[in-house]
Amino acid sequence: MRRLTVLFLFCTFLASAQTPTRKFEPVGFAQVSINDGFWKPTMDQVATTTLQACIYQTEVKTPRIRNFEKVARNKNEKHEGIFYDDSDVYKALEAIAYSLKNHPDAALEKKADEWIDKIAAAQQPDGYINTYYTLGRMNERWTDMSMHEDYNGGHLIEAAVAYYNATNKRKLLDVAIRFADHFDSLFGPGKRHWVTGHQELELALVKLYRVTGDKKYLNLAHWLLEERGHKYARGYTWTEWKDTAYAQDAVPVRDQKEITGHAVRAMYLYTGAADVAALTGDEGYMKAMNTVWEDVVYRNMYLTGGIGSSGNNEGFSNDYDLPNEQAYCETCASVGMVFWNQRMNLLTGDSKFIDVLERSLYNGARDGLSLSGDHFFYGNPLASKGQHFRREWFGTACCPANVARLVASVGDYIYGASDNGLWVHLFIGSQTTVKMGKTDVPISTQTNYPWEGNVKFTLAPAKKVKFALHLRIPSWVNAEPAPGELYNFQDKASQNFTLLVNGKPATYTMDKGYAVIDREWKKDDKVELTLLMEVKRIVARAEVKQDEERIALQRGPLVYCVEGADNNGKAWDFIVPDQTSFQTNFDKNLLGGVVTIKFQSPVIMVSPDGQSVSTQTKTITAIPYYSWCNRGQNPMQVWLPKKIKDIKVNY
Amino acid sequence: MRRLTVLFLFCTFLASAQTPTRKFEPVGFAQVSINDGFWKPTMDQVATTTLQACIYQTEVKTPRIRNFEKVARNKNEKHEGIFYDDSDVYKALEAIAYSLKNHPDAALEKKADEWIDKIAAAQQPDGYINTYYTLGRMNERWTDMSMHEDYNGGHLIEAAVAYYNATNKRKLLDVAIRFADHFDSLFGPGKRHWVTGHQELELALVKLYRVTGDKKYLNLAHWLLEERGHKYARGYTWTEWKDTAYAQDAVPVRDQKEITGHAVRAMYLYTGAADVAALTGDEGYMKAMNTVWEDVVYRNMYLTGGIGSSGNNEGFSNDYDLPNEQAYCETCASVGMVFWNQRMNLLTGDSKFIDVLERSLYNGARDGLSLSGDHFFYGNPLASKGQHFRREWFGTACCPANVARLVASVGDYIYGASDNGLWVHLFIGSQTTVKMGKTDVPISTQTNYPWEGNVKFTLAPAKKVKFALHLRIPSWVNAEPAPGELYNFQDKASQNFTLLVNGKPATYTMDKGYAVIDREWKKDDKVELTLLMEVKRIVARAEVKQDEERIALQRGPLVYCVEGADNNGKAWDFIVPDQTSFQTNFDKNLLGGVVTIKFQSPVIMVSPDGQSVSTQTKTITAIPYYSWCNRGQNPMQVWLPKKIKDIKVNY
Repeated sequence: MRRLTVLFLFCTFLASAQTPTRKFEPVGFAQVSINDGFWKPTMDQVATTTLQACIYQTEVKTPRIRNFEKVARNKNEKHEGIFYDDSDVYKALEAIAYSLKNHPDAALEKKADEWIDKIAAAQQPDGYINTYYTLGRMNERWTDMSMHEDYNGGHLIEAAVAYYNATNKRKLLDVAIRFADHFDSLFGPGKRHWVTGHQELELALVKLYRVTGDKKYLNLAHWLLEERGHKYARGYTWTEWKDTAYAQDAVPVRDQKEITGHAVRAMYLYTGAADVAALTGDEGYMKAMNTVWEDVVYRNMYLTGGIGSSGNNEGFSNDYDLPNEQAYCETCASVGMVFWNQRMNLLTGDSKFIDVLERSLYNGARDGLSLSGDHFFYGNPLASKGQHFRREWFGTACCPANVARLVASVGDYIYGASDNGLWVHLFIGSQTTVKMGKTDVPISTQTNYPWEGNVKFTLAPAKKVKFALHLRIPSWVNAEPAPGELYNFQDKASQNFTLLVNGKPATYTMDKGYAVIDREWKKDDKVELTLLMEVKRIVARAEVKQDEERIALQRGPLVYCVEGADNNGKAWDFIVPDQTSFQTNFDKNLLGGVVTIKFQSPVIMVSPDGQSVSTQTKTITAIPYYSWCNRGQNPMQVWLPKKIKDIKVNY
Repeated sequence: MRRLTVLFLFCTFLASAQTPTRKFEPVGFAQVSINDGFWKPTMDQVATTTLQACIYQTEVKTPRIRNFEKVARNKNEKHEGIFYDDSDVYKALEAIAYSLKNHPDAALEKKADEWIDKIAAAQQPDGYINTYYTLGRMNERWTDMSMHEDYNGGHLIEAAVAYYNATNKRKLLDVAIRFADHFDSLFGPGKRHWVTGHQELELALVKLYRVTGDKKYLNLAHWLLEERGHKYARGYTWTEWKDTAYAQDAVPVRDQKEITGHAVRAMYLYTGAADVAALTGDEGYMKAMNTVWEDVVYRNMYLTGGIGSSGNNEGFSNDYDLPNEQAYCETCASVGMVFWNQRMNLLTGDSKFIDVLERSLYNGARDGLSLSGDHFFYGNPLASKGQHFRREWFGTACCPANVARLVASVGDYIYGASDNGLWVHLFIGSQTTVKMGKTDVPISTQTNYPWEGNVKFTLAPAKKVKFALHLRIPSWVNAEPAPGELYNFQDKASQNFTLLVNGKPATYTMDKGYAVIDREWKKDDKVELTLLMEVKRIVARAEVKQDEERIALQRGPLVYCVEGADNNGKAWDFIVPDQTSFQTNFDKNLLGGVVTIKFQSPVIMVSPDGQSVSTQTKTITAIPYYSWCNRGQNPMQVWLPKKIKDIKVNY
């Protein structure tokens, strides 16, 4: 496989790099088969429904594909839509690529090939590709850094790399390479300046480097990062916002200390910076990103792993300003949190980044996709009076394909491997094979996570082999918050998890949040990790005024909410006193099968004549946050009041 | 007196005009002495406090007067502030003029004379006067119809006429005449088109005509009205709003059927149109205005007489869209309602216009001025969670001087007179003298209105004289709503008012809402009108969703509200059941002396531990709407819920 050759080359390169380097490599989606009870049905639904919706919208309902056809026809036709619409085609292709691995579908692959032909036909002789400019504005190309020519190109590259990895077909990869070479011919040291108006090309170029082994793409990514913060930027984003922090361009990347501006731009930037740091050993990036990461996670992240509280700039506002009903929390930003935290984990080996990744993946990002697979949230509020609803599509349609590609590529985030270490980050029923030294080690995970805390791993090396198995112990089971942590657990258990090897208590050490079992492994060794699955009461730091005197419920990685559909149409009329106890139950007929949390609660009742009120104890049902708003418009709350503090009548 | 000569000339002109003509003439502020318990203290406070605040802001804190000084110095200095700031100087002068009548103040008059000298010194040789353009932009003058050159000029004329009427000094009047002549030299039939971007000049030119007798000003006002609706307008208002309805320029005035756009612009337009109709007999205007008036009063007016529900356009939105907490209800728009309804009453003799005038005057407009006289509301909401507060001044400072000039000129709205008829519109302690035929008839009003319903009139003709005394019977005492009326009374009384002449039941007929006593009057005849002062429950038409299942309280002309300051800090936690009875009491120590309304109400109480609720009967105190927000920031509601419909905890 070409990919393995590349990996080999890459490992050789790594050895000569300075720190920081990656502690291990992720096992890519193409090497992981998923059979998980939670994720596999969702991935199948993405394949059969979400991607069909993306195709219908991209090809039939909107002119996205037609723009490429117009370029190929070359008959002076006009561009339709928005200048960044090409990126949605690429992201849908990328999602199809991931999906083909766990859900092979000849028709879907044929559709992808057909699109790729159209895309290739729209590429200009010099490698340029962008339907907005090519259709009538060629003399204006590369003049405004905020017009997403680079962003579209980055998504082209990501799609090309994914499709090549999934199918070994390289037509789109060649298109991407020609585009990257074109960009490289114009911009770089000694050539023209360029500040990406919406970061994306940086991380994409690193992917292109990894698949081609051509270092110029890595250098170009590094140069793009270094372009920021020097007032080189020109374009409408900077003019309109009059704020260089909007696109994280106020200071050079290595000098950044605070999270600012547009959330998705920030996530893509830091993902790219981490990718470059891993290969160039640029310690300045790593230092800056650790500081910025704490600013995000300790002061600006919702409990759902969502970020970007403000709809005004689709991004960050003040520290600890986390309104629930008005939360913007763009789906794409949660997807970006998954990307960035994966890279930070690879660089540090620290599981705290996976704790955040898991929070964003199972809550903020998963919430963006309806259970039916064909409706989407652009923003993901943590409270609703019933005004919110999922939509079929959006004018700016970044989120649908973004959540589709994330779900389809969940295999990217489960395992990691170094020469003598195997990492398990997420607990998802699956199997893969990693090389420990020269020995192939098949590993399979069986679990009913996140509904149950029991996870079984079976190892099957052909011959005995010594290596360290690193199993992530999620922070939610330890419930010991780090200093500065934004959300704290009120309920702490003394016995949080058990770990058995072949039925006997395992000998392990803890390292950066992983239980490490370093031993000689043989065929059919079984490891059993049992995480205590309790309902945890969570409180926010006092600085978060919006969550004052409120608790949220979390069980395993899942944040819960109370929705009207389960509670007589209401979600704002009860409190959760301190002494409340919680019952959990898996309801296979509810919302595709979920564990519900039920509890007795004082509910404020209005007499039938509307003239008096009283408090009555009723059963309240909470459901996983990601599953809300799948039964029509409904009130909902994640942060539940502990006390009745104020009353409004006839609100 | 010169004014009487003008009136005489004017009456001669009237005789030859077509219908509609005025049914009677208003008795101007300069002929009315006020000693009212409600208004006189407010007028004194305007004289001693509000006008001082206006002077301080205009002269010291902001560069409004300095701009005039700069023009006079002619040293290429720059204009400071906004292009319509000159108008605030003129409006303050106009308010001073009115105030001097009932509160003579030599220092204030000296200040006015000083300002007038500065204004006169800033007038250009050709009569042009506008500090914004004269300071460096003379080549751009009269190029953009929305830049308020006409609006500023209109306020100059209004100030000049008022100051002349109050003091007989004509320096400012001569400045105004020169400006009007300058405008007349440029615009008019056969000259350039001009559509006033913010109407005001029309009504001002009619005032100038009335004081000078020069018909060209009336013709010019008429021509300006006729300019609208023909797409002649050019300027940023039309470009920015892309909506000719914003400035009531979508169709010609005589074709207008609906109220649209900016509320103050609309009021000033229709005031001017009514003034012109009264003099030219233009029936098209009258017909249009009757239709538009019904659209305002039956579908778009708040119970407080405020209009313009939307802050977005400072104006009208959809019919029946009357949000309470977000009500814009600009103070200036309520002032404009007083102007327009006075003119409509003069043209028709119908008291329904005074009913609206009184509603706006005592509620929506009066609310714009704090009890201390030095803080102002720009918008006047009908509900607040405590976020609203009165301010010392505004960047766009139209409201303070506007409410000041209204209060100071309240004498303009009390009496009317024709050759053989005397009208009393408002019940305000005062005295004036009107001519009935050739006989001077002094009349005085003694009353404690609006706190009590008893009003005594004393007539003192030197000799016996026959004429019809028209006393307005307010619609609130009849409580019989007209068809289409937006607000209806739930409580109707059978015996609404009594009317005595010299202690005996009077013989009277009802005509257009006035009780008419047509008889021979002699010295010391006493008329006593007693209006039944009850607390009325008011409901809004079902179309007003925001007031559904709610009532408001009104007593006499005053709309009431419940404010936190009187109710344990809360105003949103109780209901008013149908059977509620109300107690009233004059509290001389509260808010400058007000009648409060108290009632027993189910209040939702939260237990001290915050774990349960109950309904307890408590006493709720309501106060006149105009007096709210004089004790710091507070929750407040005008429309009170009848039932507990919904509950939010920990809001």
